[in-house]
Amino acid sequence: MHQEQRQRTQALLKSRGIDRALFANFNSVKWLTGMAIPVQLGPNFFAGGPPLLWYEAGHFTLFVVDAYAEAAVPFGQDPDGTLVPYLGYTIEQPIAGAEHLATALRKVIGKSTAKGGTIGLEERDVTLMVSNLLQNELISGGTFSAIDGWLESLRMVKTDEELAKLKENFALTDIGHATARQAIAVGKREIDVWIAIHEAVQQAAGRRVPLGNDCVVSDRRANIGGWPLEYNIEPNSALTVDLSTVLHGYWSDSCATYYATAPTPQQVAVHKTVSEALDFAISLIRPGVMAKEVDQKVRQFITDAGYPVYPHHTGHGVGVSGHEAPRIVPYSEEVLQEGMVIMLEPGIYIPGQISCRLEDGMRITANGVEILTKHDKSLP
Amino acid sequence: MHQEQRQRTQALLKSRGIDRALFANFNSVKWLTGMAIPVQLGPNFFAGGPPLLWYEAGHFTLFVVDAYAEAAVPFGQDPDGTLVPYLGYTIEQPIAGAEHLATALRKVIGKSTAKGGTIGLEERDVTLMVSNLLQNELISGGTFSAIDGWLESLRMVKTDEELAKLKENFALTDIGHATARQAIAVGKREIDVWIAIHEAVQQAAGRRVPLGNDCVVSDRRANIGGWPLEYNIEPNSALTVDLSTVLHGYWSDSCATYYATAPTPQQVAVHKTVSEALDFAISLIRPGVMAKEVDQKVRQFITDAGYPVYPHHTGHGVGVSGHEAPRIVPYSEEVLQEGMVIMLEPGIYIPGQISCRLEDGMRITANGVEILTKHDKSLP
Repeated sequence: MHQEQRQRTQALLKSRGIDRALFANFNSVKWLTGMAIPVQLGPNFFAGGPPLLWYEAGHFTLFVVDAYAEAAVPFGQDPDGTLVPYLGYTIEQPIAGAEHLATALRKVIGKSTAKGGTIGLEERDVTLMVSNLLQNELISGGTFSAIDGWLESLRMVKTDEELAKLKENFALTDIGHATARQAIAVGKREIDVWIAIHEAVQQAAGRRVPLGNDCVVSDRRANIGGWPLEYNIEPNSALTVDLSTVLHGYWSDSCATYYATAPTPQQVAVHKTVSEALDFAISLIRPGVMAKEVDQKVRQFITDAGYPVYPHHTGHGVGVSGHEAPRIVPYSEEVLQEGMVIMLEPGIYIPGQISCRLEDGMRITANGVEILTKHDKSLP
Repeated sequence: MHQEQRQRTQALLKSRGIDRALFANFNSVKWLTGMAIPVQLGPNFFAGGPPLLWYEAGHFTLFVVDAYAEAAVPFGQDPDGTLVPYLGYTIEQPIAGAEHLATALRKVIGKSTAKGGTIGLEERDVTLMVSNLLQNELISGGTFSAIDGWLESLRMVKTDEELAKLKENFALTDIGHATARQAIAVGKREIDVWIAIHEAVQQAAGRRVPLGNDCVVSDRRANIGGWPLEYNIEPNSALTVDLSTVLHGYWSDSCATYYATAPTPQQVAVHKTVSEALDFAISLIRPGVMAKEVDQKVRQFITDAGYPVYPHHTGHGVGVSGHEAPRIVPYSEEVLQEGMVIMLEPGIYIPGQISCRLEDGMRITANGVEILTKHDKSLP
């Protein structure tokens, strides 16, 4: 699982003179191992920290608290991967995840015969405790070097394995949107629509699935988004429903705007313009195009239609995170490539008055795009 | 909000010669600030790391990514608290949460006129980047010292403010259990019961609420627990439903076993024994009792009844985490005190055959306990 990711990484590390490395970033570890780290309830109580991945001599060793080991079994079965679970929960002695993690690191890294060289560290994520262990005890004669963010550009082009995971998530958000379209009604609260969406998603998945992002009536939070609360859906309310699921550690994304009653003429006009802007944005996507050019042209489209330009990105990549490179934003000179998976999401927001956002996800192909979102974004 | 927690902490730091300190542990920061850090979808994409809390001269400064600032506003309004949000998401420049966090730390800690002294660090959670910034740039002439785990014993006795938060959570898990008792039926899957529970909890709360822990038919996972999946509930199935909610950053807990059809004579006998064991356990709780004595006596009760003893704890504290001190386990010499909030949860498990666990939460009072869970744990 995810061997291609590790091959890309190994090539990069070699080219930059890194002999050994410790990955501690949540997204780096997910991407390198294919492990779906549980997130729903926050940090594991018994862990000595997030999972860590050690690279040395073409091999990757994953250190995880025992409760998470089940999620990492496929990685451990790969020829270039070793899974090292350490003791978390026990009733025989005080909880000591950090000590057990340290013991596991000593056993693997401390027994290495490699000397010196350059050791890469994700310094923005590795803890001081782990760093002290490496730098003061386990590794002698080496030079340590920050490698934060190095994998982000490698993550942009998705493998077939990743695409399959992403497609499962997009299928779930499609189900969520079909439910939202049915569920919106005067007298319900935002949270009621959200609950219906989450129910449909989890029924289809047959398991717990984290659900993001927005479910708000359009007259609050500057009309843009936010978590569902007890706000009532009123006649003429528009509901911005922006959904992500996280299955297999991968994110989908998607947005549509739904109406509690027949949309007003202004809502119809805005919705049509946003729909046209999205179609226009999609028409711009192909390999070789620069991200900021797409961004600029779609903003111009909205301006030309006589509306205020949206205050957020035009789009972004998705993968092990819900927002990653390539960012479709005003400054980005990233050049689009075949195999990237991106979202496009123009919107029109007039605070206190009206809002509409429509979003599609797509894989960039040799000539254009393959649309991955199938949800109905039309006016009712 | 949570000023008493900060007063207890300041007294501890002073007594141990710590002049300044950086708290980086997720539960430390929640407990010290009252901030309910969002967890549902994993780490914020735009943050430079988890929230950090700096202590100096009786004052606490919280560094959080701007997206989380709303959740920390009450802390920032306290006389001993300052909230410092830093830039996360932006479309004007590359995402650079770590750099913006560093800038914020420089502005606050770098301008301090304090020199030398002993600076406490939660070394198991603080990142190397932040530690390097403090140790190599911002603080001169000081000695750094690990303070990991220091707050755990301070967290055991709950304040009235915490008790109110806990009670809101226990009310939600009560609702979840009432739903589970109704929802269990032959032909449904574990996940279907879970979805019904989560729906009822979120409808009552009027917002998204993370939900843990177990919802499994009793013939899998050694009969003890696990996340709900697509396993079918069959005739004679028992369903172990162990629920926690996380509202306001605080955890409830609770467990009961439900039956798809009229329980078998063996299920009835086991359920009655577990119920008696729970009542017996509760009867043992009062200030001055040692945790391991409770643990030993309840295990003996199960053994005396002719059943194998459960392989987990007899109980544990709850608060900003779902499992914390005092642990009611074989080794613990912790002495119970008034104001602690603990769970007790004896069970009987015969792998492949039968399982039953019943769990109550309680506040320890001057003479005994106030039960905080109100769910119906009786046989149908």
